[in-house]
Amino acid sequence: MRQLTKRSENYSKWYNEIIVKSGLAEFSGIRGFMIIKPYGYSLWDRMKTILDQMLKFTGHQNVYFPLLIPKSIFSKEKEHTEIFSEGCAVVTHSRLKKNIGKESLIIDPESELQEELVIRPTSESIIWKTYKRWIQSYRDLPILFNQWGNALRWEMRTRLFLRTTEFLWQEGHTAHSTKQEALEETLKILNIYTDFSEKFMAIPVLQGIKPYMDKFSGSEKTYCIEALMQDGKALQIGTSHFLGQNFSKAFDVKYTNFNGKQEYVWSTSWGVSTRLIGALIMSHSDDKGLVLPPKIAPIQIIIVPIYNNNNKEKCMMINEISKKILNILEQEGIRAKYDNNTTFTPGWKFHEYEMKGVPIRISIGKNEIQNDKVEIFRRDTYEKIYLPWMNLKNSIPELLDEIQKNIHKKALNRTQKLIIELDNYNDFKNKINHSGGFIFAHWDGTKKTSQKIQEETEATIRCIPMYNKKEKGKCIYSGNPSLQRVVFSKSY
Amino acid sequence: MRQLTKRSENYSKWYNEIIVKSGLAEFSGIRGFMIIKPYGYSLWDRMKTILDQMLKFTGHQNVYFPLLIPKSIFSKEKEHTEIFSEGCAVVTHSRLKKNIGKESLIIDPESELQEELVIRPTSESIIWKTYKRWIQSYRDLPILFNQWGNALRWEMRTRLFLRTTEFLWQEGHTAHSTKQEALEETLKILNIYTDFSEKFMAIPVLQGIKPYMDKFSGSEKTYCIEALMQDGKALQIGTSHFLGQNFSKAFDVKYTNFNGKQEYVWSTSWGVSTRLIGALIMSHSDDKGLVLPPKIAPIQIIIVPIYNNNNKEKCMMINEISKKILNILEQEGIRAKYDNNTTFTPGWKFHEYEMKGVPIRISIGKNEIQNDKVEIFRRDTYEKIYLPWMNLKNSIPELLDEIQKNIHKKALNRTQKLIIELDNYNDFKNKINHSGGFIFAHWDGTKKTSQKIQEETEATIRCIPMYNKKEKGKCIYSGNPSLQRVVFSKSY
Repeated sequence: MRQLTKRSENYSKWYNEIIVKSGLAEFSGIRGFMIIKPYGYSLWDRMKTILDQMLKFTGHQNVYFPLLIPKSIFSKEKEHTEIFSEGCAVVTHSRLKKNIGKESLIIDPESELQEELVIRPTSESIIWKTYKRWIQSYRDLPILFNQWGNALRWEMRTRLFLRTTEFLWQEGHTAHSTKQEALEETLKILNIYTDFSEKFMAIPVLQGIKPYMDKFSGSEKTYCIEALMQDGKALQIGTSHFLGQNFSKAFDVKYTNFNGKQEYVWSTSWGVSTRLIGALIMSHSDDKGLVLPPKIAPIQIIIVPIYNNNNKEKCMMINEISKKILNILEQEGIRAKYDNNTTFTPGWKFHEYEMKGVPIRISIGKNEIQNDKVEIFRRDTYEKIYLPWMNLKNSIPELLDEIQKNIHKKALNRTQKLIIELDNYNDFKNKINHSGGFIFAHWDGTKKTSQKIQEETEATIRCIPMYNKKEKGKCIYSGNPSLQRVVFSKSY
Repeated sequence: MRQLTKRSENYSKWYNEIIVKSGLAEFSGIRGFMIIKPYGYSLWDRMKTILDQMLKFTGHQNVYFPLLIPKSIFSKEKEHTEIFSEGCAVVTHSRLKKNIGKESLIIDPESELQEELVIRPTSESIIWKTYKRWIQSYRDLPILFNQWGNALRWEMRTRLFLRTTEFLWQEGHTAHSTKQEALEETLKILNIYTDFSEKFMAIPVLQGIKPYMDKFSGSEKTYCIEALMQDGKALQIGTSHFLGQNFSKAFDVKYTNFNGKQEYVWSTSWGVSTRLIGALIMSHSDDKGLVLPPKIAPIQIIIVPIYNNNNKEKCMMINEISKKILNILEQEGIRAKYDNNTTFTPGWKFHEYEMKGVPIRISIGKNEIQNDKVEIFRRDTYEKIYLPWMNLKNSIPELLDEIQKNIHKKALNRTQKLIIELDNYNDFKNKINHSGGFIFAHWDGTKKTSQKIQEETEATIRCIPMYNKKEKGKCIYSGNPSLQRVVFSKSY
């Protein structure tokens, strides 16, 4: 039972199995809530560390706001509230008591709260309530804050990492004195997310703007990055919202400008979540398990000794060389692990670390001692090469770099093959049903049309691409005039 | 209004003011919930980074379990539940809806949950529910997991960092095949917490065991570290619990041992929280603001230029030297900041960074250019020394080390002066009322006596010290026989 279901047989089953078998996560038994296991959490830790550095480097600071939001604050920004109140966890009491004569506990009715509290689905409301206190003058601006934490949205259909009731994420909340500055911030973050996806996660993304009906509720404009998974469906990886003055108006947050005049503050919010792990899995992995880009991999190199149990002396030599190699690699700052557990066979370990997507495996047996070369196995290409172990200090960093590039290139090639411009609705339907992908097509700009297309094909408008060329055409569905192409795809 | 209330005037007011004025945190307006501001969060980040490394180095791995715990799981371990159900946030509904005809939202009664969910006050129950699934054989043990996250306990009286309804913390949850191993783990963690407090936070602590009536509910034994604050009151900094087989029995978690026999698993849990920040503040700070030990300080060195506005050339030289110094320090891995903001005076900055507890200030003016020496100000002693700036690469790390040691020494001296053995109850009452401190006194081992002492003096038994000498005596209150001294103190 150690094999995975093949992607070609049942993609969705493959996805669930790979998560469980590589030890990333599992469902908790509480509807929609996930347990992130050590290997999964170490992936999230790597992502956090890198992204946190990128955000700090661009002047952002971390803060922490309350988990619970009073209903009256939660409900200030109308559009925002309308969506998020639809599925949220509401705290109503502060005590349980014994159910007299029974084993169980019941709510103590006397502990009813004066006002209900909502677990944050996102923190705009509680943060803008606070910014009201912190912002008086242009000297208090900009505020560039970010929060790492958990959030909760009651979801009907959940999938590990992609959509869970509780999720871990970062949410940025910034305040600015001008519209221009807030817009620049929104795009700066979109570019940070893009760099993070491309350069670290090795996931090629498309930058765009959500059509008006799909923008974040409470925002003026939602920018996003979208990536194509191996099954041709799109996954939204991150979003950056230009909030305009919606929240500053809802919470009456004004500042005194240079000229002593009062103005409403401009703002942005943006976030990426544990969903990124889903994107990583579905972008690169194969039928043997995870494939992790070296920059994200918690373990970059696994060293497996191939003992010959009949020869104790050789075993000791193998052990000694393995430790030396581990030491050399660690000194280069490489995340290496030496697995000298003797209860498992080398074959078992090979399988295990392939499943876990460790980029490079070094195996060391008696041949390796004799000719001073070690066997190097690349997880991304299944190639075996032989390198002198004395020189690993130089060759391994180069190889990790090459693997990182190769994984990105593979994903890019795959994505590019699935990008197409179409002008005929039958072709569109065919394409969506067979290979999926990003379809650039004309749209008349109405919600009605996009709904019809969704009903008939399951495809939705993922975004209006950034830097889109203006091109007059006819809507692929209605035939009505259109000024540019938008991107359709099925999605997660 | 930039001055602090003096500690000698109103200690509690001083404590609240220092937190607000140094920009660490503030209350949110939601009862008992705190907002951690950037400077406070960066302190927490430092602590997390160090402690996380110590825990990983000793084989612990990070995981993440659900925020919400179904009532039926929460109530499995009876003693545990009894305490934590007394003040917990209960989620009962999953939707709010418009209150027809009104602006406000109301709970949608149709969204009532089948079973109430409790926000974790601590995660033993949900974790042991899961360990039941993960543990079958001795090969699955030990499990050494840790979780960084938030938790919530409904508190009546709250104080910034010391006791807040929501708090950030780490909670470790381990499972072992033998009692011996679980006990060793409990003590290993106690020693890690002790090292962390003494070596990084520069806070001297006393290790001990809680008297039976104060142990963590659901545990067999609670070990703790206690520190003395400047007002002579004790603060519990961290706890490590030996849970015996209580949770494995409550959740029926058995493993098959070497001999094929089924046994209940042994376990521990342990945690430190954002309360640590309160301990840090109250251990070292003074009437001018925070005093931070260099190993924890988010900014270790602040460089302040003293411009002479009449001389542009000199200003440029000052700027140049300051940047060079910043560069030298950063290359040594020192957390340095150059504050060349021109809207504030050097005097304002001096005050600000003293308030923020930055260990070293380097100021650079025209004198400094002339004689190649810079003025170094030590926050811990208020001393000024002059050092050649070309040599800061060597002298600053040494100085930081000296400051770290001095802050610890000062706290140790203060603590030692407040430790006393007493055998007379009147002396005891006097001591508690005047200087406070750790009073080593005989106790008859009854809850009744400790309650009487608390009623009359507000002092409680902080712990039974580890490695306590056995010494026969008479209870300081009842005169009944006692076999050892315990530690009394007023506490937070």
